[in-house]
Amino acid sequence: MADIYSNENPLFKTLAFYVGVLILKMFFVQMYTTFQRITKNIYATEEDITFADPSGKKVKIDPQNPIVERIRRAHLNDIENIVPFIFLGIFYISTHPVYSTTLLVFRIFTAARFLHSFVYLAHVRQPFRVLSFGVGIAVNIFMAVSIVMFYSKV
Amino acid sequence: MADIYSNENPLFKTLAFYVGVLILKMFFVQMYTTFQRITKNIYATEEDITFADPSGKKVKIDPQNPIVERIRRAHLNDIENIVPFIFLGIFYISTHPVYSTTLLVFRIFTAARFLHSFVYLAHVRQPFRVLSFGVGIAVNIFMAVSIVMFYSKV
Amino acid sequence: MADIYSNENPLFKTLAFYVGVLILKMFFVQMYTTFQRITKNIYATEEDITFADPSGKKVKIDPQNPIVERIRRAHLNDIENIVPFIFLGIFYISTHPVYSTTLLVFRIFTAARFLHSFVYLAHVRQPFRVLSFGVGIAVNIFMAVSIVMFYSKV
Repeated sequence: MADIYSNENPLFKTLAFYVGVLILKMFFVQMYTTFQRITKNIYATEEDITFADPSGKKVKIDPQNPIVERIRRAHLNDIENIVPFIFLGIFYISTHPVYSTTLLVFRIFTAARFLHSFVYLAHVRQPFRVLSFGVGIAVNIFMAVSIVMFYSKV
Repeated sequence: MADIYSNENPLFKTLAFYVGVLILKMFFVQMYTTFQRITKNIYATEEDITFADPSGKKVKIDPQNPIVERIRRAHLNDIENIVPFIFLGIFYISTHPVYSTTLLVFRIFTAARFLHSFVYLAHVRQPFRVLSFGVGIAVNIFMAVSIVMFYSKV
Repeated sequence: MADIYSNENPLFKTLAFYVGVLILKMFFVQMYTTFQRITKNIYATEEDITFADPSGKKVKIDPQNPIVERIRRAHLNDIENIVPFIFLGIFYISTHPVYSTTLLVFRIFTAARFLHSFVYLAHVRQPFRVLSFGVGIAVNIFMAVSIVMFYSKV
């Protein structure tokens, strides 16, 4: 039997591809925070202000700015969901899942997280954010339960 | 020799099982936040309020609510400790550890994190939270030092 | 061909070593928060105050204290960057990278993150923090793009 964790295993290749895509998406949200801080002069530390505005007259520390806090919540939500997804994906592919199911599950999760980021950052009205969040959570719980069931038996 | 990362290796099977269990526990804390937000009408974004209370009269934005902030801190503490644990577990099982020691270490960590969540969410008095936190950290440092020592030699 | 995920593969050994080192660095930042909380009496929950100051007269809850918030931002920034790095490292070593390039990339990232923590906690003036942050992000994007390109072809 071929190794599970090998770049010849289709399950592993699919996982690796979507891990790369999801992490790039996370970085986009992360850098969007930095972009908003610089263009809107919203900083949380003194050094940043000294650097952005040496005279210190125009810019004030604003660690709870709503524009930045929204992106930070979107980013934190990514960490809270994409990080477990990758861990679960790594162990899920060792439970002999059907390839087509796995591919579908990875694609649904990836689509849901792209939608979640878009909806969060574009202020789209609810229930779109809660739905995209829920789909991601459902995929993660499905994989977590599959892993626990598989490894409590063997 | 059997592969380390294979569902025939008892070390890998044990790790996979506890990864599934710990991530399910994390999701419970995460969903408890959502449950508190909905039942107590505590929202951090405008869309949520527009959805929960279309008239906009009863519910106000409250991004620093103490009830939700407590659960969020519990959840963040999970991320700060369980995520490193899983990474360390993945590499620790490659350092030829004794099976019974590894099983014990994984069980102690899992028990400490369940206790930590319970103590945090149930407002149990200190020092129970700091003790359960400390046990988790001690396990993680033990694994991290084992990995660094093993791989600085070979 | 030797397995990728085996402690006989130099790429895997290097990754394991730097994962251990980076996670130990993260724990240092995490415990520095606890150290500051205790020595400066800055607590975010009532239980902590009841424990640190049973009379309840001298210490007040202060969940937004700037000293602790700075370390927490440094720690969160670690999570936002080191966690993706480890995931990317795990999949990057499966894309047949050159060993010397990989070693260099891992070392640059590790050095940048040590510098970032030092600069953040020691209040060093900008642009040192933004530069060390940028180097880490650049390494992560390089690995993520390499993974996506490798696995979109095969």
